[in-house]
Amino acid sequence: MKLLSQSKSFKGWLKRYRHASTSVNADMNFAIYLPPQAESEPVPVLYWLSGLTCTEENFVQKAGAQRIASALGLALVCPDTSPRGTNLPGEDDSDYIGSGAGFYINATQAPWDQHYQMYDYIVDELPALIQQHFPVNDQQSISGHSMGGHGALTIALKNPERYCSVSALAPICNPSQSELGENIFKQYLGDDPQAWAQYDASLLVADAQQKLPLFIDQGDVDDLLQDMLKPDTLQAACEANHYPLTLRMQAGYDHSYFFVASFIEDHLRYHEAALRGKTEVAYY
Amino acid sequence: MKLLSQSKSFKGWLKRYRHASTSVNADMNFAIYLPPQAESEPVPVLYWLSGLTCTEENFVQKAGAQRIASALGLALVCPDTSPRGTNLPGEDDSDYIGSGAGFYINATQAPWDQHYQMYDYIVDELPALIQQHFPVNDQQSISGHSMGGHGALTIALKNPERYCSVSALAPICNPSQSELGENIFKQYLGDDPQAWAQYDASLLVADAQQKLPLFIDQGDVDDLLQDMLKPDTLQAACEANHYPLTLRMQAGYDHSYFFVASFIEDHLRYHEAALRGKTEVAYY
Repeated sequence: MKLLSQSKSFKGWLKRYRHASTSVNADMNFAIYLPPQAESEPVPVLYWLSGLTCTEENFVQKAGAQRIASALGLALVCPDTSPRGTNLPGEDDSDYIGSGAGFYINATQAPWDQHYQMYDYIVDELPALIQQHFPVNDQQSISGHSMGGHGALTIALKNPERYCSVSALAPICNPSQSELGENIFKQYLGDDPQAWAQYDASLLVADAQQKLPLFIDQGDVDDLLQDMLKPDTLQAACEANHYPLTLRMQAGYDHSYFFVASFIEDHLRYHEAALRGKTEVAYY
Repeated sequence: MKLLSQSKSFKGWLKRYRHASTSVNADMNFAIYLPPQAESEPVPVLYWLSGLTCTEENFVQKAGAQRIASALGLALVCPDTSPRGTNLPGEDDSDYIGSGAGFYINATQAPWDQHYQMYDYIVDELPALIQQHFPVNDQQSISGHSMGGHGALTIALKNPERYCSVSALAPICNPSQSELGENIFKQYLGDDPQAWAQYDASLLVADAQQKLPLFIDQGDVDDLLQDMLKPDTLQAACEANHYPLTLRMQAGYDHSYFFVASFIEDHLRYHEAALRGKTEVAYY
């Protein structure tokens, strides 16, 4: 692991690293925020998955989350959204495929299958790396924004035993039934919609056995709401399958990090309650 | 005035505008955050001046200040750091001169004197524009970071009757006696150090009649501390002239917006107390 940068932030330390990932067969970057409490005891971890075009830096620069993580004693781990510099054809040609658009899936189609194994990276490799190198305990939760909200929801739905809680801000809730999502999934996963279903939160809730509650905030003037995000579909699927969902529609908010920053404190407090095993979990 | 963008943020509105400035004889951008209280009554204003290379967007994206401004009922006004696109020779060739480096001075030397009249813009034109178009009252304060900290200190020292309070984070405190500062001032103001002295906080405190207290935070591992920022010189000048200064050296913090974000709440609360005329002003 190579330390790329470090800055003191709200009495803790924000550090960026690069490491050789075996899952994606390339170097990956991540940012980690260690709150001051981590100097004296292992702390729980919130994994944050970012949206399209983001790197490991957007969330820690724009969300204002370190202030709350410092107060609550949470570590934040923010991976980059894809491998980069892998020299795959078309890697940097689109905001929706390739660099900055890993979608937290394991690609099966050439050329992406060579490196785009972000699901394995987030679920297995990165947590093991974090456990090995940083003062964290084994309590972890997951959250994210937009494409990263999709990642957080689908990963938690497929691995509920691994996470104390899950939340999302403006997540992509039903990618396999949007035009853009179909196009992306075809390139990464091929033409069979069965292959897409395992990465679609609205479809995964139907098969869930262990029902980790979903907590979602969504701005109601978000440009992507109807065509890309589709929280209504997820809400209907949850109702049909008796899956616990708290969906808060936030009046007047758009898709930006100004929206994320406005509500991130609620999410961190929600996760902290679950990570500490508090009986009363906020907002649910 | 042309609205460039708007996003709801912490129950208020963040808006960016472009307007034709008479001071700089070019278009200027600024961002304004209007807290929810501005919907029912005029609110006080904090002017924020940003540092080298910044635009009107850096502070509102990275400092986390809207959360506090929303709670306290303060408007934030964040101008761009220079005119842009004026086609002056060398305008975009350096991080220290031209675009993104207006230094909040009135340039007297060609070609900069055609457009780089940022002092007049910040002191006179922008507050008049804000008063005319937005629900603000006549109470205003000023703060900034790095080059913007220099701007806030020098402008408040020269116009103490206009501001309720002034503060700065990692300000350039004595530009006319640093190698980089001298080089910049020569290009904007000519070779005579007398012309530089009116834009040097450490020199201005000697002439101050109305002594608006200075409140400064400075990280002690800031790379620019000794060669560019020189808070020690300002502190010595304040002591020699019985000028009230609170200088907090913050252990372990660097020059980044992670430092600004860590302490901006103290600054907004300090200004709010002064803007509201509260008898007990925090930290001084």
